[in-house]
Amino acid sequence: MAKSKFEYVRLFEADDRCLPNTWIVVRVDGKGFHKFSTEHEYEKPNDIKALSLMNRAATSVMEEFKDVCLAYGQSDEYSFVFRKETQAYSRRSAKLSTNVCSLFTSAFVYYWNEYFPTGKPRYPPVFDGRTVLYPSNQNIRDYLSWRQADCHINNLYNTTFWALILKGGLTPAEAENKLKGTLSGDKNEILFSQFGVNYNTEPEMLRKGTVLVRRKVPVALPNGGIREKSQIVQEYVDIIGDEFWNTNSHLLTVT
Amino acid sequence: MAKSKFEYVRLFEADDRCLPNTWIVVRVDGKGFHKFSTEHEYEKPNDIKALSLMNRAATSVMEEFKDVCLAYGQSDEYSFVFRKETQAYSRRSAKLSTNVCSLFTSAFVYYWNEYFPTGKPRYPPVFDGRTVLYPSNQNIRDYLSWRQADCHINNLYNTTFWALILKGGLTPAEAENKLKGTLSGDKNEILFSQFGVNYNTEPEMLRKGTVLVRRKVPVALPNGGIREKSQIVQEYVDIIGDEFWNTNSHLLTVT
Amino acid sequence: MAKSKFEYVRLFEADDRCLPNTWIVVRVDGKGFHKFSTEHEYEKPNDIKALSLMNRAATSVMEEFKDVCLAYGQSDEYSFVFRKETQAYSRRSAKLSTNVCSLFTSAFVYYWNEYFPTGKPRYPPVFDGRTVLYPSNQNIRDYLSWRQADCHINNLYNTTFWALILKGGLTPAEAENKLKGTLSGDKNEILFSQFGVNYNTEPEMLRKGTVLVRRKVPVALPNGGIREKSQIVQEYVDIIGDEFWNTNSHLLTVT
Amino acid sequence: MAKSKFEYVRLFEADDRCLPNTWIVVRVDGKGFHKFSTEHEYEKPNDIKALSLMNRAATSVMEEFKDVCLAYGQSDEYSFVFRKETQAYSRRSAKLSTNVCSLFTSAFVYYWNEYFPTGKPRYPPVFDGRTVLYPSNQNIRDYLSWRQADCHINNLYNTTFWALILKGGLTPAEAENKLKGTLSGDKNEILFSQFGVNYNTEPEMLRKGTVLVRRKVPVALPNGGIREKSQIVQEYVDIIGDEFWNTNSHLLTVT
Repeated sequence: MAKSKFEYVRLFEADDRCLPNTWIVVRVDGKGFHKFSTEHEYEKPNDIKALSLMNRAATSVMEEFKDVCLAYGQSDEYSFVFRKETQAYSRRSAKLSTNVCSLFTSAFVYYWNEYFPTGKPRYPPVFDGRTVLYPSNQNIRDYLSWRQADCHINNLYNTTFWALILKGGLTPAEAENKLKGTLSGDKNEILFSQFGVNYNTEPEMLRKGTVLVRRKVPVALPNGGIREKSQIVQEYVDIIGDEFWNTNSHLLTVT
Repeated sequence: MAKSKFEYVRLFEADDRCLPNTWIVVRVDGKGFHKFSTEHEYEKPNDIKALSLMNRAATSVMEEFKDVCLAYGQSDEYSFVFRKETQAYSRRSAKLSTNVCSLFTSAFVYYWNEYFPTGKPRYPPVFDGRTVLYPSNQNIRDYLSWRQADCHINNLYNTTFWALILKGGLTPAEAENKLKGTLSGDKNEILFSQFGVNYNTEPEMLRKGTVLVRRKVPVALPNGGIREKSQIVQEYVDIIGDEFWNTNSHLLTVT
Repeated sequence: MAKSKFEYVRLFEADDRCLPNTWIVVRVDGKGFHKFSTEHEYEKPNDIKALSLMNRAATSVMEEFKDVCLAYGQSDEYSFVFRKETQAYSRRSAKLSTNVCSLFTSAFVYYWNEYFPTGKPRYPPVFDGRTVLYPSNQNIRDYLSWRQADCHINNLYNTTFWALILKGGLTPAEAENKLKGTLSGDKNEILFSQFGVNYNTEPEMLRKGTVLVRRKVPVALPNGGIREKSQIVQEYVDIIGDEFWNTNSHLLTVT
Repeated sequence: MAKSKFEYVRLFEADDRCLPNTWIVVRVDGKGFHKFSTEHEYEKPNDIKALSLMNRAATSVMEEFKDVCLAYGQSDEYSFVFRKETQAYSRRSAKLSTNVCSLFTSAFVYYWNEYFPTGKPRYPPVFDGRTVLYPSNQNIRDYLSWRQADCHINNLYNTTFWALILKGGLTPAEAENKLKGTLSGDKNEILFSQFGVNYNTEPEMLRKGTVLVRRKVPVALPNGGIREKSQIVQEYVDIIGDEFWNTNSHLLTVT
């Protein structure tokens, strides 16, 4: 059987290597998660179990891809930032997006039963993935700011929306109507005056999303000594302002 | 919080729409499945459970993507052929590869326990994905022939290799050595004379791989009548020669 | 001087090879030719000298690129059709478009004084170029039909427009106004009834544009004999209907 | 004539916009200029007329493309650096490379007779073009250093090679043989000891190539006053070291 006769078809594969010296972001995004969260009775406005599972899946990705220096997640999405100099998969765009996306999905299903009482979800969940390039440090910071600002806007809205429904007794349509055209300040006011909720004291994981970074953490040795070990940790902090980047300046410098 | 100030970063996403009127293949491929199959004690040379699970996962993909007219799987890989005219995800390359890859992976983990006695695998399995374009009917046929020829070559090798080990008592290194430089005929001869195995009567799923296509199948109605329903069926047939394509000419014509 | 220290920058060049087995069209288009034609007093509605110079420049491209099997030109544009199988410049998109575009431009300036009485144009003319892929024979025919239909529509409009001005004494604004919303039949009628012009007897080069193909033509030998030689010829024929393609079926078949 | 029926073919054009916030270089390169320079009797090792014509053509490109902040030329090539933020042609790669390449070629032919006594070249010269992206200031500097190092290496070689032939009476093969394996120091020594030539006093245009930048230059006004005007000037300076960039820091900053 002449294998070689057919092998010419390999030449139809395109070379999709990313521009060198450029930040590579792979973002995975839940597909149809409005329906998925409803069918799996996610708590509203936020389901800590579901967010924790997202963080678990993202940790698997960072364990595998050593060149992901930071990941940021919120709602049903997660962004993975590869170092500018990464040579993972020769920087081939589809290799990066499909491997990250597949591992994230796989881990999400795999660890489901550690977070949800049901053995497995009602049907296989799907995430799509994309690769985006950012040339400068400012660009990659602005990308992450974009996602965190999105988290803030959506979470403030959802918190107010569901307070109006769950505590205020409104229908979804009524709640939507009430919030139409309101600004951030208006929503803070509704939460505080109607429901006694100070939005700024809501859990930071919900307001900020989750940042995954590698930190040296002390590990106790059998002999009583201590050594440092690199570990992936979750932080719920502001990444829009300068403070995070000043105290983590190693993230933006070539190593 | 000025969301708009950061939104410019969306402009960095590239437009990756596939050339129109061209066959789109998305192939998913097990990552590190040599190790994965060993750790999960896949039977050698072929594990019917594992292949059946692959077929199950691929069926999920075809159920979701109506424009996949044919899928072909063998070993730890599966190829999905989208109709030339598909407008799924506006033909965006990364959307197609990541969605297919994520769903395949998700279903693989999800249905694991229907095929393997263990509740779940020892760690989350990963598949990568890629999108390749083929302009002509001959090209797409040659692509599929390439994969099926690969299946044949590998399966004949593996069948002989493992017979030498499991039945012949050779070490892997001895078996590898014995097969070095042999042609197909030589391997057939070893199987027959040494182990009484006629390779041509081995199960077709192993020798040919699995073809998934949609067929109209009769379904019994409650009133005793019968109606036709489109269903995804598995076939273990030659797709290199003309016969399959002559009897399935609808696959290559624009619908 | 360490050359090697800087040579890494070559890795930033992207691989832009065109999909194999696909028609490659390079189209060059005059940049700012409305102004250019005015400044060089092109005759209206058509300047035979200018069109002939376009044909001369296109012939230079076909002489250089043996894999261009057909070229089609009209107004200030020219399309060059490379055989599906061409390996010219390894099918690199930018190499093809810039080489064709540069040679076309170069020849246009070079041969200017063979068509225009002035030694050279008032300033250097510019053409842009683009590479477009077409997978099927129908697609490449439809591409050429698109350009020839464009030629027809524009030329009928321009012929009527300039008749109204040059023979009818209208201002451009009046002529434009009179033609607003008219169909082909209306314009034919205006030409015939007002100016005695039967559009269908206008020169075919103007109505159809110019097709360049290679033909075997007989050449007289010194000894009185005759031999055939491949030559690039201009034809002003319909390429939308089937007739041209039936009598030139070699153009669409792999050679 | 149904134009719309064919217009779908426009959808086959790919979107090739360059990554934002990234330096864009378009480099044009003489095609077959070894032959071209021989047929037009370019002086060896350098023809000042030819280099001046290259500079003239490049100046035309910079006059047209205001977003080219710097151009660098040597031998038969020229690189045009577009500002990182340029929106020229919406940053479409093929538009940029073909327009620059066409204008450069056009001007080269157009101005030929201002530099060469013959009215026009013996045949139309051709330049190819390419677009390359560089994300950081260091990358774009390294790109330019790469080209200037190339200029130095080639010019030192050619100067010595042609001295051996024109003054030393060697054949080209003998000269080539003599230079095989020599380092820069060796060539400097040959030039000095054999031909009394101090390479470092050779004209800087030959040793450094030509840098085109925009400078404010004083212009005398009719009333006796003076005003500043932006003008494209030629400089033959080192662009590998820091000095040029320190005194021209505006080139690398966003304007």
